Formats: sequence, structure tokens, C-alpha cells
Amino acid sequence: MHVSVPSLSLVGAGPGDPEMITLKAINTIRQANVILYDALVNESLLTYAAPNAIIRFVGKRYGCHTLSQQEINQLIVEMALTHGHVVRLKGGDPFVFGRAVEEIQIAKQHGIRVNVVPGISSAIAVPASQMMPLTCRGTAESFWVITGTTAAGNISGDIALAARSTATVVILMAMSQLEGIMQQFVQCGKSDTPVAIIQNGTTPQQQMVTGTVKDIVWRAQAAGIGNPAIIVVGEVVALSAVLNASMEQLQINDTIHEKR
Amino acid sequence: MHVSVPSLSLVGAGPGDPEMITLKAINTIRQANVILYDALVNESLLTYAAPNAIIRFVGKRYGCHTLSQQEINQLIVEMALTHGHVVRLKGGDPFVFGRAVEEIQIAKQHGIRVNVVPGISSAIAVPASQMMPLTCRGTAESFWVITGTTAAGNISGDIALAARSTATVVILMAMSQLEGIMQQFVQCGKSDTPVAIIQNGTTPQQQMVTGTVKDIVWRAQAAGIGNPAIIVVGEVVALSAVLNASMEQLQINDTIHEKR
Repeated sequence: MHVSVPSLSLVGAGPGDPEMITLKAINTIRQANVILYDALVNESLLTYAAPNAIIRFVGKRYGCHTLSQQEINQLIVEMALTHGHVVRLKGGDPFVFGRAVEEIQIAKQHGIRVNVVPGISSAIAVPASQMMPLTCRGTAESFWVITGTTAAGNISGDIALAARSTATVVILMAMSQLEGIMQQFVQCGKSDTPVAIIQNGTTPQQQMVTGTVKDIVWRAQAAGIGNPAIIVVGEVVALSAVLNASMEQLQINDTIHEKR
Repeated sequence: MHVSVPSLSLVGAGPGDPEMITLKAINTIRQANVILYDALVNESLLTYAAPNAIIRFVGKRYGCHTLSQQEINQLIVEMALTHGHVVRLKGGDPFVFGRAVEEIQIAKQHGIRVNVVPGISSAIAVPASQMMPLTCRGTAESFWVITGTTAAGNISGDIALAARSTATVVILMAMSQLEGIMQQFVQCGKSDTPVAIIQNGTTPQQQMVTGTVKDIVWRAQAAGIGNPAIIVVGEVVALSAVLNASMEQLQINDTIHEKR
């Protein structure tokens, strides 16, 4: 292991499935003197760390004292200056709602070199795990990824614009705002647009509930779906059911179609 | 190598850098009897293939005869039925503008099992390679990924909505429509919004040009930037310059700031 040039690598750990990490991320973890990892990171990835690496959990976990972003920033700087190469291991991709910018800025202010290693974003991989494409020629020609909770704590104004578009809308960290968000889609005349909510996507604990804008709130409650979850709004949700159908079902559908 | 249950894996090869592929993708390539790969796939990834795997290029390349989507669909079915496990290796992620839906539907119609292995999308990784986050608290609270060219061949109406939002807008396959797209942003009063165009992102041939909505067209022409390129519109482009700045520059900026 190399010693001591202070540096920071922001590394994407992917969506949960430990095979959905890149070679570049693994190689970077191997070269870390210190690893600071978040709650949504699969802990089996920590086995790639060098035997003498310092490994520390800095995420949010129910009922535990958690570090504030400012405390994490401070820890990054301290660890880099005293130990060398710090890896900030984050769920998904570090540049998608990862607060990476704050960590980079503080590191740079202290003369610490920074690089970023992209990860598989759960915004893309979790729908894919349900055979749900984000785009489809003629059905959804773009996709929009939004957080449920803005820095100010309210629902992003972008959601009203997204609801008026043909985009597949993917909403992260939004379960607590679900009702208000669906209301925005209702106001844009999208009560019948399909919605899916996928919890713990790409892991063995994966669970999905589907419905439409007008009924997904109670369906999610009935199914007991909660965080961490991803909400997908758009016609691709219905497409997923078709692509997931077994061959037998497809043949039955063909027969029905022929009889019409 | 296993033989002969007809199956199709749609595998994301990532954005170009051969280290930006997942373990799952590598393991899937290793188990392929047949690999059909696209133009934007880094050919060094083909070394993961088994020695007796059939490897065939099915992408579009200047001056060569290229297969139509229908011919590719047919080839998938033929190869799966005669050889077993077919891997469709696609640049980026298969479910982001990858025409995966058509390939899955035809495979299913022929009783071929299908699975999808997500890849690092160039929509996220290429901006990241320039230290350009897609989201940043308070600056850009969502991001929107759009293709320049719709199935109908015209500019997507969604671009006008995107131009009115706080989203970072990422536009793929759009160099031939650049002028018309920028015109839509001008009409929404965004003439001065920063824009970056990144060609061959994450590879050694990477090149970037930056400007604003009103001047990026001629800047791109002057720099000779063409496909394959990714266009990013939003304040995060300016942030990238700050995050990329060397320590010396940061100190100079701090000094300037203090003097004001």
C-alpha cells in the first residue's frame, strides 16, 4: 500500500448487489488507507480493503448517533492529512444526490487531491432489475431523476414540470413525500399513469408494488413498502409487466389478440 | 462453458474506460457462447470472452455496411436457438436509449430467456470524468437525460420543459441538432446558462468544450468537436471549473475574494 500523499476518492458502490460494482471502484478500494462508508453501501464490498486499512461507518442508521455532513467533511480532511488516501464509499453514484460537491470543496481547500469513480446509480439499475427500461422509442424518450426532498425540505418545483413531460420520472428518497408528489401528477391529468415503487432494489430483500398515480399511496401502505425505495412514474412501468411476462403468458396474450 | 439453453443477456459495457465495467458484466461475458457488440463498446472487454465464443460486431461504423435493428433482432434469435447464451454488449447502460425493448420482445416471442445487466451510463460518468456533478444541493436538484433524436426524427418537446426547470439537462446523440436545441433554451431565457460538450468521455481521446447556450454552437465548431459526444446544460458546468481548479488557483481566488 502506498503511503501518505493526502488524497480523496469518491467511489460509487452501486445499488446494493455486490456484483454491480466496477473494476475501477474495486481497485480504488484496494488502494485506500481509510474507508468512510455510507448506510446504503453493501458491507461485503469492504472485503476488498487492504488488511491494515481503517474502515469507518459514517452513514445514517435508525436509532444511532449519526455524523453530520460537517463532521464527515472534517473527518475526511483529518484522515487524508494523517493517513493518505481516503475513500468515501457511497451508495449508487457519488455525483447523483451524493453531497459530493461539499466533500470535494473542503478537501481542495486543504490541498487534498480528489478523484471521482462513478458507480451504477440505483436510479437506473433498480428499475432494470424489474425489467423496466427508463426509455423506449415511441413511449418514453427521456428520463428525469429527481429527489423527493430538496435542501429546503419541500417538494421540488421540478416535479410539476416533470409531470407535464413525456419523461419517465424517477424519484429518489421520496417515500415521506409520496402523497404530495402524486398530487402534482394528478393536477397534470396523470391520475392513470402507471407507478412502481421498488424497495431494496437489486438485493435479495427486493420488493415492488405497482399501481397508478391515483392509487399507489394506499397500495404502498398496504404492501408495507418504505425506505430505501425508488419511485418510477411513467408508461415504462406497464411495459415492465409485458417484458417480465413468462412465455406461457405471452402465448395466451397472442391467442387472445388473434381471436379479436 | 454451459451449452444450449437459449438465453439473451443485455449487458452494459460502460462509457468507454475498460475499468468502468461491473463484475456482473464481466462474469456474464465469460459465460457467453455468442457476443454481439456495438460500436461504442471498448473492444478490450472482448478479452473476457471464452476462447471458443463467437464474437461479432453489429454496430454502426462509418463507411461500412451496418445491420438494421431488424437484422440484429433476427441474429439474436438465430444465435440463441443454435448456440445457447447470447450476450448483447452495449455501450453505457442497455436500458438508456439502447433499443433493448425491441430485442427483449423478439427474444421472448421465441421462448428465449432474457436478463439485463446494468452498465455505467455515459450520461452520468462522462460529466463525472470532468468533475461535473449532475446534482448539487441548492444548484441543481434533479437531472434530465434526453436524446437529441427521437424516433420521429425531430427535437423532443420535452426539451422546452427541461429548459424551464432547475434540472441539469444531459443530451445524448444530439450534435446534429445542437443549434435547434440551444434555440429552445434561448427561448426560455437561458442564453447565459453554461453548456459543456464532451467527446469520447472517459477515454484517452476525451475532449471538452465549454461555453454558454448562446455561444456553444460556434465554440463546438471551432474546437472541431463531434460525435460521440454528450451535451450538459446547467449551472453544474460552471461548478466543474471550480472543482477542477488546482490548489494554486483556489488560493488566488480566495485572495481576490478577500480583497473585494
